[in-house]
Amino acid sequence: MKRYRNREIWDFEHGVPVIGNKEVILGLDGGTTTTICVCMPFLNASGPLPEPLPVLARAIAGCSNHNSVGAAARDTLEQVMADALSQSGYSRSSVRAVCLAVSGVNHPTDQQRIVNWLREIFPAYVRLYVQNDAMGALASGTLGKLHGCVLIAGTGTIAYGFTDDGREARAAGAGPVLGDWGSGYGIAAQALTAIIRAHDGRGPNTNLTSSILKYLNLSSADELIGWTYADPSWARIAALFPLVVSCAEAGDKVADKILLDSVKELALSVKAVVQRLGLCGKDGKDPFPLVMVGGVLKAKKEWDLGKEVINCISKDYPGAYPIWPKEEPAVGAALLGWNFLLKELY
Amino acid sequence: MKRYRNREIWDFEHGVPVIGNKEVILGLDGGTTTTICVCMPFLNASGPLPEPLPVLARAIAGCSNHNSVGAAARDTLEQVMADALSQSGYSRSSVRAVCLAVSGVNHPTDQQRIVNWLREIFPAYVRLYVQNDAMGALASGTLGKLHGCVLIAGTGTIAYGFTDDGREARAAGAGPVLGDWGSGYGIAAQALTAIIRAHDGRGPNTNLTSSILKYLNLSSADELIGWTYADPSWARIAALFPLVVSCAEAGDKVADKILLDSVKELALSVKAVVQRLGLCGKDGKDPFPLVMVGGVLKAKKEWDLGKEVINCISKDYPGAYPIWPKEEPAVGAALLGWNFLLKELY
Repeated sequence: MKRYRNREIWDFEHGVPVIGNKEVILGLDGGTTTTICVCMPFLNASGPLPEPLPVLARAIAGCSNHNSVGAAARDTLEQVMADALSQSGYSRSSVRAVCLAVSGVNHPTDQQRIVNWLREIFPAYVRLYVQNDAMGALASGTLGKLHGCVLIAGTGTIAYGFTDDGREARAAGAGPVLGDWGSGYGIAAQALTAIIRAHDGRGPNTNLTSSILKYLNLSSADELIGWTYADPSWARIAALFPLVVSCAEAGDKVADKILLDSVKELALSVKAVVQRLGLCGKDGKDPFPLVMVGGVLKAKKEWDLGKEVINCISKDYPGAYPIWPKEEPAVGAALLGWNFLLKELY
Repeated sequence: MKRYRNREIWDFEHGVPVIGNKEVILGLDGGTTTTICVCMPFLNASGPLPEPLPVLARAIAGCSNHNSVGAAARDTLEQVMADALSQSGYSRSSVRAVCLAVSGVNHPTDQQRIVNWLREIFPAYVRLYVQNDAMGALASGTLGKLHGCVLIAGTGTIAYGFTDDGREARAAGAGPVLGDWGSGYGIAAQALTAIIRAHDGRGPNTNLTSSILKYLNLSSADELIGWTYADPSWARIAALFPLVVSCAEAGDKVADKILLDSVKELALSVKAVVQRLGLCGKDGKDPFPLVMVGGVLKAKKEWDLGKEVINCISKDYPGAYPIWPKEEPAVGAALLGWNFLLKELY
């Protein structure tokens, strides 16, 4: 703690030469498990982006979600930015803008708190942008353009949409108690439920039983009750998701139905956002990017949830064009900051 | 603690005269919030039970679930038994049997632990019976006979069945993560989910929104997310159950569907137990008692979940005859102990 208070974290700035007078932009992706910061050069031109994108440095730190770790989030953010700058050979005085896409930012008060933290580190001419982590995920697919819809499905799930004129909408993202059934947690919890139901006679037999009990080293479905309540973390249950896919691929009907239902749930979240924002235009056929993020949506050999979600959405909105981002959300955040800055300048 | 260790808890035995040489039986209902002990005279005859049942004393204490409070459960049990005996004017030497129906007893090791505790208090000739709390609930409806099925639906839900020849089976009772959807918690969680879905465009509008937000003093559906995760206790969410019933009675289709689905879930738990135990006989028409316990199954003015569950079960098993117990589970436990003892004697 003392280290941060004394600002020794920035000592490297006196030890390394500042590289020319080029300016850089910092993009941050702040999650509940890790925080990633990338340092990219500030590209003046508004032409096409260079390929590959010029990422000067990348640093990783722990959780920066204020809801989870409180004021420690500030130290984490400061540390990860200092690390990225140190690696890149640039100093704080070269930073033109910081764009932070962080989970747990839902209200203007959340944004203002983080802006205040950043303002203690950076002088007034540095532009500071603080957004929800879904914005970074969208921008990682659209390369900085804030238009379209992003569907995130990992441990949890949320659909977020944005329009060119600044409107936004979300669906799901309320956690498992409030029905995020298409998430990795939701899918795995339904699989565990199916095992209990098969065991007590309420549901059909399923290969999920042998598959999951073997994986967890349990001998009976009864023991799942104790296993589940021993540690209520969502990620621990969501980690069973690949077993559900394997069972479905091997022909298990119960697992197959869970995945089919989840595809409908995920597609419904996107449709609700697209509908509310009118992303599809008046005739419902306007093109819009649909950015797909998270472990649940990544392509599997046979049972490909991401592809099925797209198929389901395309029936209603043929203009949806899916993007599986090649860039990570921190790069998306940097590009987003770059776009915000260009809008202010021109 | 010292009080119990010194056994001063039993000091009343020296202060009050022992009433005749009549024998008594203690029945205990041990739950996760309260523990109730009743003291009843030991009825030698195997004829019809007197009406009203002769309950000599009744004492209340806190949680006696070992899974929740550890070894403190032992002190609670000892205290509540001493209180009941003290009130009744009897001493420990009058106790013929103790029957404890307590939640958290699922394995023989759980039973043995409690029997060992009780054995330190009562001499070898006192019969000690330790059972799951569902047995006390069943016996409160069958007046001590261990035959039939009990459906409990309060905050949680479970169906338990027993046969004359000592077989037993259960369904549900695995908690909300593992799909106890007919419980008070399950019904309320579905109502909260419906509000979120109406809010973000995934589901139809419902009067649950205004009803529940008003009750919780919240101004927007968004705030439900924070409310839900601020305190994850199941009972807090289950307490919203009556609002769901009120909305359904006022004609709300979303609330109505949640209750209809829950009726099917609850009936399915009973059917699974009846099927596995063959309680309905070979032709499926044998009569068997179906004891209905818990707030969800209590009669409402119009929307009567208990009645609908019975209707649903009766279609498959016309021999099911519902019993809404007049006696409490602690009395059921005492009668159960009485029956166990009679079996040993005759």
